[in-house]
Amino acid sequence: MTVRSAPDRLLSVLAAFDHEHPALSLTDISRRAGLTLTTAHRLVGALTEWGALERDESGVYHVGLRLWEVAALAPRGLALRQIALPYLEDLYEATHENVQLAVRDGAEVVYIEWLSGRSSVGVHIRVGARWPLHATGVGLALLAHESPELQERYCAGPLTSFTPYTLTDPARLRRVLADVRRTGVAVSDRQVTDDALSVAAPVRGTGGAVVAAVSIVVPQTDAQVPVLVPAVRVAARGISRALGWRPSALSG
Amino acid sequence: MTVRSAPDRLLSVLAAFDHEHPALSLTDISRRAGLTLTTAHRLVGALTEWGALERDESGVYHVGLRLWEVAALAPRGLALRQIALPYLEDLYEATHENVQLAVRDGAEVVYIEWLSGRSSVGVHIRVGARWPLHATGVGLALLAHESPELQERYCAGPLTSFTPYTLTDPARLRRVLADVRRTGVAVSDRQVTDDALSVAAPVRGTGGAVVAAVSIVVPQTDAQVPVLVPAVRVAARGISRALGWRPSALSG
Repeated sequence: MTVRSAPDRLLSVLAAFDHEHPALSLTDISRRAGLTLTTAHRLVGALTEWGALERDESGVYHVGLRLWEVAALAPRGLALRQIALPYLEDLYEATHENVQLAVRDGAEVVYIEWLSGRSSVGVHIRVGARWPLHATGVGLALLAHESPELQERYCAGPLTSFTPYTLTDPARLRRVLADVRRTGVAVSDRQVTDDALSVAAPVRGTGGAVVAAVSIVVPQTDAQVPVLVPAVRVAARGISRALGWRPSALSG
Repeated sequence: MTVRSAPDRLLSVLAAFDHEHPALSLTDISRRAGLTLTTAHRLVGALTEWGALERDESGVYHVGLRLWEVAALAPRGLALRQIALPYLEDLYEATHENVQLAVRDGAEVVYIEWLSGRSSVGVHIRVGARWPLHATGVGLALLAHESPELQERYCAGPLTSFTPYTLTDPARLRRVLADVRRTGVAVSDRQVTDDALSVAAPVRGTGGAVVAAVSIVVPQTDAQVPVLVPAVRVAARGISRALGWRPSALSG
């Protein structure tokens, strides 16, 4: 057994919780974190006392409110979402469709906001969920504005397939990314599930770098892409302005 | 110097970040956490590697996306907010005023959602912010439904005053809490700032216990309480239903 550092052991307790495992017993935590029951007991106790975990009446542990409060300070999490929310609400009011905000983390997008449309297509996206860049509209919008090196490394694959429409051919993905840069919008047409289409646009920060992407997801059969594009672009530009971005003649 | 446990030291690094200090240098962290620079350096390194912290180009640390992802699993944080958001949006659409969702943590309310009204009164509330129970509408709605023992302990004081209207007299606070239970709504009339009024109603969980409160904050001079009350109550009941609460003939 390798010797693990104290921070590593404590963080492994937090990492035991995920969307499939939002509530865990002490035994679950010890098993999932790879810790002895004694160590798990001690660390869970410290985390619970601090408020990072909460224990309910049945003895099961959940992520606690204090961790949530600290995490609310994450500039790429709740802080970004707080600035973006009015624009996402406006986009939702204008379309009544699923509206999302996402950022890139490595080779994946992480959804940091999601307003549900009434005409809900089968979207299985939750706040905090992750998805590979090449499949989603927001992922394509983010990837297209990364450095050529990062794009090339990503395009070289492997590119996981989710439906027959997922972009798994590197050459085709490169062409799509060039289109996204040219048009300022990304469309994912049945590339995640075979009934959904999304239209996404990049969000820029103060210096002009792309820091997030906003999208609408609609049922593919009714999708009116030319109608959705301006709405998504206006929302993305609104969020960018609120973040301090100032448009120039050159930027889309 | 007292010997601090490894979990305590690591958590003190996270606790160094708050609303007034969302971005910290290594020196700031070491000072605020009460750690030597060497220890702070080692712990910040571990937290950054894991993703709980992120370092920007200027070398300053922020709370990281991975902590936010774990924290998104907190049932009393983002998870509750996710269920409540459609109802909060409806309340916002119906009133275009500031709409809030809060939970109790000890003697304070913690705001877990806040939609800003266009006619913005000077509300200084942010997601993750805390406020004493007796001053705010949400706090009164939450306190009124706690056990008689907790209420009595709270009423015994001390009760901090924020304006001349803040409830600082224990006997008066007890009468107000009885009114809240009877009417199903709580009103904070200039008790936080001298220009704002809030109307709040309790949100119930599956078993009927009050788990959160929803409120509207408006400028006190234009406040039409009789108009706001039904809207806030309908929203609170909608969220309660979404959480699994089923009304009985007895419950408000």
